[in-house]
Amino acid sequence: MSSDLYKLTASEVSARIKAGDISVEEYAKSLLARIEARDEAVQAWAYLDPDFVIKQAKALDAVPQSERGSLHGVAIAVKDVIYTKDMPTQFNSPIYTNDAPKVDAGSIAILRKAGALIFGKSTTTEFAATTFGPKTRNPHDPSRTPGGSSSGSGAAVGDFQAPIGLGTQTGGSTIRPGSYNGIYALKPTWNSITREGQKIYSLILDTLGLYARSVADLEMLADTFAIHDDASPPTDFTLKGAKFAFLKTMVWPEVGPGTAAALNKAVSLLHAHGAEVEEISFPEDLNALPAWHATVLNSDGRTAFLPEYTIAKDKISAQLVGHVENSGKISRRAQVEAFDKISAARPVVDEMLGKYAAVLTPSVPDEAPLGIEKTGSASFCLIWTALHTPVVNVPGFKGENGMPIGISLVAPRYHDRRLLAVSKKVGEVFEAEGGWKASM
Amino acid sequence: MSSDLYKLTASEVSARIKAGDISVEEYAKSLLARIEARDEAVQAWAYLDPDFVIKQAKALDAVPQSERGSLHGVAIAVKDVIYTKDMPTQFNSPIYTNDAPKVDAGSIAILRKAGALIFGKSTTTEFAATTFGPKTRNPHDPSRTPGGSSSGSGAAVGDFQAPIGLGTQTGGSTIRPGSYNGIYALKPTWNSITREGQKIYSLILDTLGLYARSVADLEMLADTFAIHDDASPPTDFTLKGAKFAFLKTMVWPEVGPGTAAALNKAVSLLHAHGAEVEEISFPEDLNALPAWHATVLNSDGRTAFLPEYTIAKDKISAQLVGHVENSGKISRRAQVEAFDKISAARPVVDEMLGKYAAVLTPSVPDEAPLGIEKTGSASFCLIWTALHTPVVNVPGFKGENGMPIGISLVAPRYHDRRLLAVSKKVGEVFEAEGGWKASM
Repeated sequence: MSSDLYKLTASEVSARIKAGDISVEEYAKSLLARIEARDEAVQAWAYLDPDFVIKQAKALDAVPQSERGSLHGVAIAVKDVIYTKDMPTQFNSPIYTNDAPKVDAGSIAILRKAGALIFGKSTTTEFAATTFGPKTRNPHDPSRTPGGSSSGSGAAVGDFQAPIGLGTQTGGSTIRPGSYNGIYALKPTWNSITREGQKIYSLILDTLGLYARSVADLEMLADTFAIHDDASPPTDFTLKGAKFAFLKTMVWPEVGPGTAAALNKAVSLLHAHGAEVEEISFPEDLNALPAWHATVLNSDGRTAFLPEYTIAKDKISAQLVGHVENSGKISRRAQVEAFDKISAARPVVDEMLGKYAAVLTPSVPDEAPLGIEKTGSASFCLIWTALHTPVVNVPGFKGENGMPIGISLVAPRYHDRRLLAVSKKVGEVFEAEGGWKASM
Repeated sequence: MSSDLYKLTASEVSARIKAGDISVEEYAKSLLARIEARDEAVQAWAYLDPDFVIKQAKALDAVPQSERGSLHGVAIAVKDVIYTKDMPTQFNSPIYTNDAPKVDAGSIAILRKAGALIFGKSTTTEFAATTFGPKTRNPHDPSRTPGGSSSGSGAAVGDFQAPIGLGTQTGGSTIRPGSYNGIYALKPTWNSITREGQKIYSLILDTLGLYARSVADLEMLADTFAIHDDASPPTDFTLKGAKFAFLKTMVWPEVGPGTAAALNKAVSLLHAHGAEVEEISFPEDLNALPAWHATVLNSDGRTAFLPEYTIAKDKISAQLVGHVENSGKISRRAQVEAFDKISAARPVVDEMLGKYAAVLTPSVPDEAPLGIEKTGSASFCLIWTALHTPVVNVPGFKGENGMPIGISLVAPRYHDRRLLAVSKKVGEVFEAEGGWKASM
């Protein structure tokens, strides 16, 4: 039924459009109908113009088959900190209300050329930099946060309002909503995708993030963004005999019962499917990684938000004013030391991770918390953001309130494709046997 | 005479405007007359609209005294890889001809709020990423390059067409034109100024750069951009008894007679003024710094230019196509290793530099080469770009053909203000006794 098209993954819809089974317009209408039915509950969009979506869809339908790109007609939600030439970019900031520079971010230029249907702008916390939630609610329980800062993209993909979405991550802004909304999320290796035209918080931390409801879709996006490892990813990876590790990390005391149980179950499932899983830990001298991340982030915010502070100090959050005014009194010496210590940790951790098919670690402390005012904790994610490694959130587990919980799979830098290949097999098991299923 | 206003430094013109001696319009007219007289020879501008300049100047004159910022009425040349909401941004690329997104870069937003007169867009090599010169000629000899990639800002400030200018540096794009055009240039500590809205080549290397004809002007800009060291800069620094070092670097074999003589003379002058100067060298295990820089740069270009490659491969230079296609076959392993080795070098070199008031090192191999097709060598500069340290080009010397040659002063990261204070005293000596003088 064409009214069910919204349920398709990006790979599925792409195949159907390619085969001529459906038009982009039909598909877009199905998504718009889903959004009409669900928007009051979820509110994932900062900007969405249904007429414009249909106009774009019709234009894509008019493109000759021979000129179509790899994502032809596939709808994508775009976090509203990424420039789009045909829609406003507002950063959830009153300074930029209705601001619409006619320019595409580098990522959008690539997606547009591949034929993606740039669907709308999804909500974000202010500049993707604070933890005060936007209007968006968790699609699986509207009394809970969808996480942030990529709130809208996470919720839209989790709620079948778009098959794929763009987020960003500086702390946990991609992986956290991935876990809370029960979807796959890839935070690729730092700087493996252009960040041109994406609001800066921290140059050394900010990473474009990708959402989907299948690993195949993440692979399609990785192809589009030319993310390649040195070696081709394994085509015949199986869990049987594979060597995994799990890593509780130095922030394990923050874990809740949901994630603790999910990690236990994940390890059991891998064992049951014939994989080896051993427990590893960070070297003790990396215990300050979270503190180093905070020092770098706060110091980089001092540079990043000086323009907005200069223009309209009264229109930015106290947290951002604090960055610019260096309210934490972080010295340049401390900043540089934290920056250098994280740098020194990267090759050490790469080597540690490289011994395994992937390393399992919590995505978040637990299921999505109640309330939409705060977007949850980034404690587990930010370690990997600092280390620049790729991370995939694999959904499949549930917490005490029936909300989705994901587990992060981590690999050394620039092993994104191998990680995706591994995540695909792991995801099959977690989705089938982990205990959580998305209801449509 | 108001027709001579174009000769003023930014500090001088700011004081005159503040005192009510001159209007912004008078000042702008003087600069426009200078440009009219000199543009055929120098061609520093990618975009300049005299009527719009006058309109802006009149608007600034109408601003009440109490609402004026620290740079009120001071004209600034803006490299054409930095977004300006009221002028096109074209990157010297046919892809972006007449492209004018209505958005200010973060740096421009800050300057505009401070009351700067955003004068025009100055020429650049393609995306500030190639070494093929734009139309611009060296103001001191039109048969020679002004250097690049910040060709237009360097030439405009060197030719008294603007008192200050913005450049960028990924290899040697700020310091090199500084030396070739006989002006002061500051490449500040990496990420100490926002790069929001400035075209990306390499996230870890790109740095906004500043041009002026006096250190006082660089200090005024550093104030505007809130560049602060941990300690207040010395107000009473004198050469007498100060401890300097000079460093030939691992690329010294590339030096020409002009720079070799300039460095010799610089050391002699410091000695003559009572300073100690010792020779230092890099630890041998840092000899590959230039190779690491190249590896990182080429790899980062792979990410940075994928959008343009995807949109219009036929409209970008072969060098950039080569980046995206990884024609150098640089592995991810090699990329990460180079990135990590540079990271590890930073604290080592900071410590080495920290023992001195400043370390003297070549800015460029020699005076500006003949021809405008190529913009010269970045060999000496790129070491410091990779290391993230602040660098000031101090002019004052001349080569065998009478062209200007500068010497770089270098300090540890986030010691920009101390470096400026030291450069001021050093510059007084080099300008007075180095042998080169700008003719107007």
